[in-house]
Amino acid sequence: MAAAEIQAILDRARSLKTSCRGDELNGRVVANIFFENSTRTRCSFEVAAVQLGAHPLNLSATGSSAAKGESLVDTANNIEAMGVDALVVRTGASGGAALVAKASGIPVINAGDGRHEHPTQALLDLFVLQERLGSLEGRRVAIVGDILNSRVARSNLHGLLAMGASVVLVGPPTLLDSSFESIHPTGGNATVEVSHDLDGVLEGVDAVMMLRIQRERASGGAISSDYRRLYGLTAQRARRMRPEQLILHPGPVNRGVEMDASVLDDLDKNAVLEQVTAGVLVRKAVLMRAIPV
Amino acid sequence: MAAAEIQAILDRARSLKTSCRGDELNGRVVANIFFENSTRTRCSFEVAAVQLGAHPLNLSATGSSAAKGESLVDTANNIEAMGVDALVVRTGASGGAALVAKASGIPVINAGDGRHEHPTQALLDLFVLQERLGSLEGRRVAIVGDILNSRVARSNLHGLLAMGASVVLVGPPTLLDSSFESIHPTGGNATVEVSHDLDGVLEGVDAVMMLRIQRERASGGAISSDYRRLYGLTAQRARRMRPEQLILHPGPVNRGVEMDASVLDDLDKNAVLEQVTAGVLVRKAVLMRAIPV
Amino acid sequence: MAAAEIQAILDRARSLKTSCRGDELNGRVVANIFFENSTRTRCSFEVAAVQLGAHPLNLSATGSSAAKGESLVDTANNIEAMGVDALVVRTGASGGAALVAKASGIPVINAGDGRHEHPTQALLDLFVLQERLGSLEGRRVAIVGDILNSRVARSNLHGLLAMGASVVLVGPPTLLDSSFESIHPTGGNATVEVSHDLDGVLEGVDAVMMLRIQRERASGGAISSDYRRLYGLTAQRARRMRPEQLILHPGPVNRGVEMDASVLDDLDKNAVLEQVTAGVLVRKAVLMRAIPV
Repeated sequence: MAAAEIQAILDRARSLKTSCRGDELNGRVVANIFFENSTRTRCSFEVAAVQLGAHPLNLSATGSSAAKGESLVDTANNIEAMGVDALVVRTGASGGAALVAKASGIPVINAGDGRHEHPTQALLDLFVLQERLGSLEGRRVAIVGDILNSRVARSNLHGLLAMGASVVLVGPPTLLDSSFESIHPTGGNATVEVSHDLDGVLEGVDAVMMLRIQRERASGGAISSDYRRLYGLTAQRARRMRPEQLILHPGPVNRGVEMDASVLDDLDKNAVLEQVTAGVLVRKAVLMRAIPV
Repeated sequence: MAAAEIQAILDRARSLKTSCRGDELNGRVVANIFFENSTRTRCSFEVAAVQLGAHPLNLSATGSSAAKGESLVDTANNIEAMGVDALVVRTGASGGAALVAKASGIPVINAGDGRHEHPTQALLDLFVLQERLGSLEGRRVAIVGDILNSRVARSNLHGLLAMGASVVLVGPPTLLDSSFESIHPTGGNATVEVSHDLDGVLEGVDAVMMLRIQRERASGGAISSDYRRLYGLTAQRARRMRPEQLILHPGPVNRGVEMDASVLDDLDKNAVLEQVTAGVLVRKAVLMRAIPV
Repeated sequence: MAAAEIQAILDRARSLKTSCRGDELNGRVVANIFFENSTRTRCSFEVAAVQLGAHPLNLSATGSSAAKGESLVDTANNIEAMGVDALVVRTGASGGAALVAKASGIPVINAGDGRHEHPTQALLDLFVLQERLGSLEGRRVAIVGDILNSRVARSNLHGLLAMGASVVLVGPPTLLDSSFESIHPTGGNATVEVSHDLDGVLEGVDAVMMLRIQRERASGGAISSDYRRLYGLTAQRARRMRPEQLILHPGPVNRGVEMDASVLDDLDKNAVLEQVTAGVLVRKAVLMRAIPV
């Protein structure tokens, strides 16, 4: 997604803060096909839909044809044939949403596909960063944690570079190998660095995005008991940060792992709930962009 | 259900293709009580309800009082007492919907009860057949597969005969015994035949309805590995069919069992997604008929 | 909750019987956070919300962040940040709803918290009692069953005393110990008695509230096979009751345990379904009181 397209979504999200009528998508039906558990993302899309006047149609893997062995694409084709206006798809399979989009005649919104992408998460993170920092051109953001397995990292990396921000990827060598050093942004002055030293990186960035340790996805052995000490946003590290340095986390936070409870509970120090609020705005903007009125 | 009543529903469904205002059932609440898993049928009823302006209230067996041992009728009585306007009931128990209807003061719609009936499935199949073939009087339709365990077969058999079409039931002797030969339609010239030879039947019918192999319901041993070879709609059989011969399946399709993937993916050859679209129209018509405005 | 506040809710519920417009909470979103299974209560809140024009947002423990180990308060904070207007919380943890309310900037409605409280259940019971008996001042109500483990008993005890009714707690010594005798209502002439003899109590009360045997919560050994004989509302006991004596049960009823099937099925004898209908009215009143318009 190009910078102009991203900015258009962020601008629309911003305008919706003050001017959401509630009937923008009146009578439309938005299917939330969640083949992977997610309270936040599903609820966020659902709130976005209802606050625009649309009806959410929720499908989860439990209690669905998935239990009868139907494929994601077959399910999506069927839901489309029912006359819904857009599909929001969350799946554990990397590339799942693209597969559905290819087979579909209606808008498909990727709500997270395996270890691949989570675009609306990146958009909401960019939204919060812009609200707090203004233009992201020339800014520097650290993404910290299980980079290898994180679709949030992948989508934010693309989004931040597109908006002109440089990215420092920080994590243990097992979760962030040297292959990431070969990413070279096209155009602009943004750069990608790889580091295994959070303390060395912390001072030089405008924002730090903590990633969730995906116990569901990561191989168990990769997460050592040293994780918090080396890569956690501990109370001690948080104290060293300047007030204008932002702390983000996509949630849900593993308290005492990626972030100490005291850091999470200090709403002046972190933007976690602002991210949640931004999520609804950004998803409204994405739905309005997808569904022609 | 008599032919005139069926036709009235089909006619209303047809008129809803072009003239659904979206407020026909404004403010009404339709409870979907699904004691058996079903993505398609539940979503179809839900989309039908919301596109008429009604609110769906979804209950599944998981997370419900069913887990506390409450009976279907008790649950239904309770939901009725909450002030909902109609009950859509799916249950694994044959006769379950009739039991609820007997105990209930509001309209009850059968969304499938065990091996007994699935009337809205038959209605949507009749809708598609009429759209493609015009009047069904004198037409000949094959229903193929696990006739013994199929509520879809049972409801379609009644519906097709009522509309004047003859039916050939096709399946292995274990899933279609000689008792079916004793069905004699009352009035008209429609007939019921039983066959164990799909290839012999295929050429002489206007449409072929493939049934889903209900692994959930059928006893395991009944489905031999020869099923596809003998009763599957293989690519080879599909090639032998004339373009005007219709292929239907209630879905979800077991690819490579009842139907080859290449047949399912060829939307010129099969009407599977048309059936899904028709399902919403027919369920709208059924809801509007059930709920007085 | 003081008598005046309770009465205001009951009065509003009564007025909603005849004058519910359907747009009282237009465009509002009410999140139903159910960390414990409950068909009735969740559906009741959902119907209340939609019949006032609000959108219900349903979260259950299954398929939610709870499976990722997120705490109730974190989940609630997140849902609040999405811009919902009120939280309805059901949890197995006593004090759970209060914990959420303390951390929350929006109205929180307790839909049952462990063995602690179930205030809307008590309100709906009071509503039915007032509908049938008029003022509760000086009335006498028996609450029968597993008093020790019942949030319904606890909330009704408080509510009845507040409204001036005396309460007789009846149950086996294992489920109703002597500590309950030390409850002394403040002000008024209402009293609390403890009894282990249902037959001795039955004649002298205006209403009898049967409690559900919470097999989920009670320790197995506490429920002996004598339960029905000693504390069940058997057909025989029901015959001894005068027509004006009310029988209530929060449901779902264990037929043949707390109440004989014949008593439950005799809608002249019990008010179980009236309670369900009252539940929606009372919850509408509670939602309207919580959400400023």
